[in-house]
Amino acid sequence: MSGSGQHRPRFNHEVEPSADGDPVNVDHDVLRGVVAGIFEALDVPSEDALLAADVLVMAELRGVDTHGVANLAPRYVQWIEEGFINSRPNVRVTRGGTALRNVDGDSGLGVVVAARVMKETIEVARETGISMSVVHNSRHLGMAAYHAMLALEQGMIGLCTTAVRASMVPTFGREPRIGTNPIAVAVPTRNQPAFIFDAATTTVSLNNLRIRSLRGIEVPVGWVVCADGTNPSEPEVPQEPFRLTPLGGTPEGASHKGYGLGAIVDTLSLVLSQASYGGLLRGAEAGHMIAAINVETVMPIDEFRTAMDAYIGYLRATLPADGHDEVLVAGDPQHRAEAVRRRDGIPLPGAAIEWVIEKAERSGVPGVDRLLR
Amino acid sequence: MSGSGQHRPRFNHEVEPSADGDPVNVDHDVLRGVVAGIFEALDVPSEDALLAADVLVMAELRGVDTHGVANLAPRYVQWIEEGFINSRPNVRVTRGGTALRNVDGDSGLGVVVAARVMKETIEVARETGISMSVVHNSRHLGMAAYHAMLALEQGMIGLCTTAVRASMVPTFGREPRIGTNPIAVAVPTRNQPAFIFDAATTTVSLNNLRIRSLRGIEVPVGWVVCADGTNPSEPEVPQEPFRLTPLGGTPEGASHKGYGLGAIVDTLSLVLSQASYGGLLRGAEAGHMIAAINVETVMPIDEFRTAMDAYIGYLRATLPADGHDEVLVAGDPQHRAEAVRRRDGIPLPGAAIEWVIEKAERSGVPGVDRLLR
Repeated sequence: MSGSGQHRPRFNHEVEPSADGDPVNVDHDVLRGVVAGIFEALDVPSEDALLAADVLVMAELRGVDTHGVANLAPRYVQWIEEGFINSRPNVRVTRGGTALRNVDGDSGLGVVVAARVMKETIEVARETGISMSVVHNSRHLGMAAYHAMLALEQGMIGLCTTAVRASMVPTFGREPRIGTNPIAVAVPTRNQPAFIFDAATTTVSLNNLRIRSLRGIEVPVGWVVCADGTNPSEPEVPQEPFRLTPLGGTPEGASHKGYGLGAIVDTLSLVLSQASYGGLLRGAEAGHMIAAINVETVMPIDEFRTAMDAYIGYLRATLPADGHDEVLVAGDPQHRAEAVRRRDGIPLPGAAIEWVIEKAERSGVPGVDRLLR
Repeated sequence: MSGSGQHRPRFNHEVEPSADGDPVNVDHDVLRGVVAGIFEALDVPSEDALLAADVLVMAELRGVDTHGVANLAPRYVQWIEEGFINSRPNVRVTRGGTALRNVDGDSGLGVVVAARVMKETIEVARETGISMSVVHNSRHLGMAAYHAMLALEQGMIGLCTTAVRASMVPTFGREPRIGTNPIAVAVPTRNQPAFIFDAATTTVSLNNLRIRSLRGIEVPVGWVVCADGTNPSEPEVPQEPFRLTPLGGTPEGASHKGYGLGAIVDTLSLVLSQASYGGLLRGAEAGHMIAAINVETVMPIDEFRTAMDAYIGYLRATLPADGHDEVLVAGDPQHRAEAVRRRDGIPLPGAAIEWVIEKAERSGVPGVDRLLR
């Protein structure tokens, strides 16, 4: 057991897993198999079950603990058990043209729906150069970057946005109207790690606040607003209900830009897909926008990969600020976490391990004993 | 002469025109004709000259004074006279497929190149549902929203990004590497004003800082970084060279998100178009990404317009924060400015009026006397 997976470079505001208990390092392949088994026992087709498990395990591997097995698997399982998620969705195009489609997610696991839609979108983009799908009637899609990243090995740029239940307070407002509404973009490279952007249009994520609230950790001015919509005068421990600020934090910090970006994500993911909007979504209902850009259509992919390497190298060559050793590029912290966790295992909190083991054993999933090597 | 055009609602950080002299209200139609005449006298084809003038006058009408006649026309004219801008560009597709194209702007006026490319992109999207063009070898495109807005009357969503010379300092860095790199998105509505987002991925625009610097106005912490890359400890008057922060302002405000968004704009507008990147661009060189989404492909446009009206109404219905009367939606301040300025005229600074008159008279442009009614 090694804690090295925890010592990863920080770039954003991610926090450690919320589940309690000392972490135990588990092998990602074993974990994926067991989690897939849990989904399969809930009547999720085996291919979909493996895909769902892969999305969650990939988040754990990349250090995005808020979107991994520990935080999301129990919720997804509960939603299937409650019938809020359909284990065998009929994902189908309801209306569309050559390069743009509207897809009904049929209340399926968002992690599965989004990945399947991206794979089909990629096939269309191979012919048309760019393709976009908007998805209604879906559910929480996990780590948005996962779906964008599916484009990478096809030499394409992948984009994914998802709109969820409201937690962002518009600039000059006092109540949440828009979700955290992340935007993910993945860009292929040659020798550099892929450029992978995945960020909420709020200043920080909801889970980040939840965890700090539970642990009594103060957050800086600009992360949340007070009940009357004003900014707190000094750092404070966030309390439910959380009122997240749009990226920019305060009006003078240009929070109207984060607010506008969040509304664009709503427009593409919900309004254009004929889903709903943030204030009307229940539970983990979600709409998505998924797109792929086939680089080869406008530029030889080899030249593009070389150019992206040069561009990323140019960003890395930025003279660092006083007190810093390096300038990072989107995806770097996750890339580094992945290298460590593939080698040492994923540090899963004790409570999450217990949940996985109990759930797997009750469902007769094999391989559970291999989790604790 | 009325000053009412100045009393518009503020949502962002725009500042008043930089040119000196008391403003004089001029009619937008007359101004457009005279500015078009100035471009035409420089061998710009009459259709392009009118288009260029329309982009600049539309910015003035919408209160985006940083991107209007006063601030940009003299520079565009100078660049044409110096040969840095080609008055008769051969704008052509260099490589492309069904819905994605790479376009050579042939050093033309960016305001003209971008608008012409958007019009062609819209025609493609009519057939394919979505279409994107990336543009290399172009120049400053004026107010990015203008180009996105061309999609509105076609019942489409318009998108436009442009990458320009570096002024944004990456998170944890101390030197500029990325441009202000704005993102514009225009979404059609029925009775509500169109949703029109147009924002730099930096906290504020370069022109905003230039003007405050000239006038000795302090800017808040989070707008610029010091020469060593750290944040100023208190508000100060910005000095050249300006080191703009990415949207988010500070590392704890999540500036890595604005930095990532700026890099995405570079990737689409410059790398994918085979242009260059921020550190290598000279003068007003620029690359663009221009896209159109044909709503009707995935949803009846009438239903979409109604749904957007409802969505915008839902945002407006947000209970305002203490000290505020209303919650605005992207494009509101500009929409209100436009109503006033169409009625009362555009308050053009005296120095800008003088420039227009002198330039027009020397070029033999008719109608100059009608500027000062």
